[in-house]
Amino acid sequence: MGTNKTVISIDAMGGDRGPATVVAGISKSVEKNSDLRFIVHGPRDALAPLIAKRKLDAQCEIRDAREVVSMDAKPSHVMRHGKQTSMWSAIESVRDKEADVCISCGNTGALMAVSMIRLRKVEGVNRPAIACLWPSRNPSGFNIMLDVGADIRADQDDLLQYALMGMSYARNGFGLSRPRVGLLNVGTEEHKGRAELKVAGDIIAAAAAANDFDYVGFVEGGDIPSDRVDVIVTDGFTGNVALKTAEGTASLISELLREAFKYTPLSRIAALLAYPSLKRLSKRIDPRRVNGGVFLGLNGTVVKSHGSADATGVSAAIKLGFTLSQTGFSEKLAARVASNVTPVQGDDQPDAAAAGAGDTNKTDTA
Amino acid sequence: MGTNKTVISIDAMGGDRGPATVVAGISKSVEKNSDLRFIVHGPRDALAPLIAKRKLDAQCEIRDAREVVSMDAKPSHVMRHGKQTSMWSAIESVRDKEADVCISCGNTGALMAVSMIRLRKVEGVNRPAIACLWPSRNPSGFNIMLDVGADIRADQDDLLQYALMGMSYARNGFGLSRPRVGLLNVGTEEHKGRAELKVAGDIIAAAAAANDFDYVGFVEGGDIPSDRVDVIVTDGFTGNVALKTAEGTASLISELLREAFKYTPLSRIAALLAYPSLKRLSKRIDPRRVNGGVFLGLNGTVVKSHGSADATGVSAAIKLGFTLSQTGFSEKLAARVASNVTPVQGDDQPDAAAAGAGDTNKTDTA
Repeated sequence: MGTNKTVISIDAMGGDRGPATVVAGISKSVEKNSDLRFIVHGPRDALAPLIAKRKLDAQCEIRDAREVVSMDAKPSHVMRHGKQTSMWSAIESVRDKEADVCISCGNTGALMAVSMIRLRKVEGVNRPAIACLWPSRNPSGFNIMLDVGADIRADQDDLLQYALMGMSYARNGFGLSRPRVGLLNVGTEEHKGRAELKVAGDIIAAAAAANDFDYVGFVEGGDIPSDRVDVIVTDGFTGNVALKTAEGTASLISELLREAFKYTPLSRIAALLAYPSLKRLSKRIDPRRVNGGVFLGLNGTVVKSHGSADATGVSAAIKLGFTLSQTGFSEKLAARVASNVTPVQGDDQPDAAAAGAGDTNKTDTA
Repeated sequence: MGTNKTVISIDAMGGDRGPATVVAGISKSVEKNSDLRFIVHGPRDALAPLIAKRKLDAQCEIRDAREVVSMDAKPSHVMRHGKQTSMWSAIESVRDKEADVCISCGNTGALMAVSMIRLRKVEGVNRPAIACLWPSRNPSGFNIMLDVGADIRADQDDLLQYALMGMSYARNGFGLSRPRVGLLNVGTEEHKGRAELKVAGDIIAAAAAANDFDYVGFVEGGDIPSDRVDVIVTDGFTGNVALKTAEGTASLISELLREAFKYTPLSRIAALLAYPSLKRLSKRIDPRRVNGGVFLGLNGTVVKSHGSADATGVSAAIKLGFTLSQTGFSEKLAARVASNVTPVQGDDQPDAAAAGAGDTNKTDTA
């Protein structure tokens, strides 16, 4: 493999649609960017014919892994007995610095658990988080929300770290020079919601100036797709419910829209004429286009693709992983968090970043 | 006022659109059901001309109340100093049994706080809840979710009470003989989510047979609009975020849909032809049609209308309040909860119901 090319480590086995869909996603990505290289993890006898059929032998190296992490596997079980799985193997390639980023459509809990023990947490991070992209009214077309399911709890210090990691993602991954960060609550008034959110809001506000972001205060569920915020911070339980609720709502509406257009002969004609408009809308909110939850706070980039992702979705996750590895995001994030633990360190500088990027065992006093 | 007519006590002042909208909502309702009678609370000099203009003098009695609870008022402040407000006055009419149900578009927290101190909690209920209707794939067209914001916390026993209150609402208000109850979590597998949810799931499951409902287990955000459940139980923080997230998502999609149809001359023609279809869809998911969060667990029915409700929304909330008072729901719910506190009591029987329906100071051992 060429040394200047981005290498993506991809778990071919985790998704609901099987390895053929993952290989089809690789093929889509290679069509757009022929410099991409892949280490593909899974049973060699299943993968080799799929890769040969798509003529991807030059771009793909197969890493034989006989076992698969099932969607209902317990993370703790995978941590103890999962060494032979394609998921473990895919993370191992990032740990060994063979690949820049790991992508999997598999079991989220297991992927996070194995990522945590193999890649380790960035120094200063207590709980890593999963950040997702959310269609929004902002010029970029989306907002960032975290945590959407890495952990089910987050205390005030975790929420501050999420704010720092989220704004680092927004800045480095998407070029927002001064991201606006909001804290999800049941009301925007200061006295609303849980007491720990008030405290979290205070410490996030206090960290804003030194870290070049704006804290916009509490935001509500209705603000998640709004243009008054770029990064929405919440605990993983609430974030996960919100994400799945929005997906469920969008899917209900699109189903009802289809039904509405089948109702009469006239509405069927209208549907034909409306097709380009609906296509435009559907492209704007297509969850496949924003596919890819990014694990933040680890020494290495891991992108969790949706379990039901099709080839377009897998390709979107690959593109996201590629962009993040190009910008050196993982290292910059580590530096950002470190600079808030030990204020003497530099600020998003490559040198400071490199210091925090390794698989380190240093203590908090470093 | 006729003794056999349903009397609705309505706070004219709480909403974002002012008393004219509330009176317009009353007018809409009276057009459909001329038996309705209203006690309308607010400043007499503001209300009298509005009511006269709509020719509603025969249906409406004005109860002069000079003060208004603002949207940002603290509930604790309103509890101490709110006796002269239209909201307080509206609840008082239900307490005094002059009216069957109270409706307000005002500050939710204040409305719940005043309802709790004036109407008191049903015996056996620790935390009252707000239940909302949610557009769904079920034959009825909606599901019930609670709590969506009465309280920001709920322990396992509260969640059991929510399950009982929610299924009582589904049965008595909407004729479902055996409601299916689900518990909102971040995954459907048994080991997922917070530990207290596992315990809550166990005790709800154990209560299902004796209370004639089905417990379907954990449900996720995506299941809220599904047809695998009728009642979704969650704490008020999560429920409120989910509700507002869904509203925000629906509003973003409808905005983008309008934009998509303005894009080209052809798409504008398509929009004209598609209008009846889109109208059908919009009617199906129109939040105004499912307007009205019902306060459950109080000695008396209180319906919280959306603050931004227009006349159609106010009229929908009135209809919901009317239906609930017709079915004697509040009394049946009290009996249901009581029967789970003291198993010797009857089961949704009118006699047992009456016993629990008063403004009682009995202890838990009754």
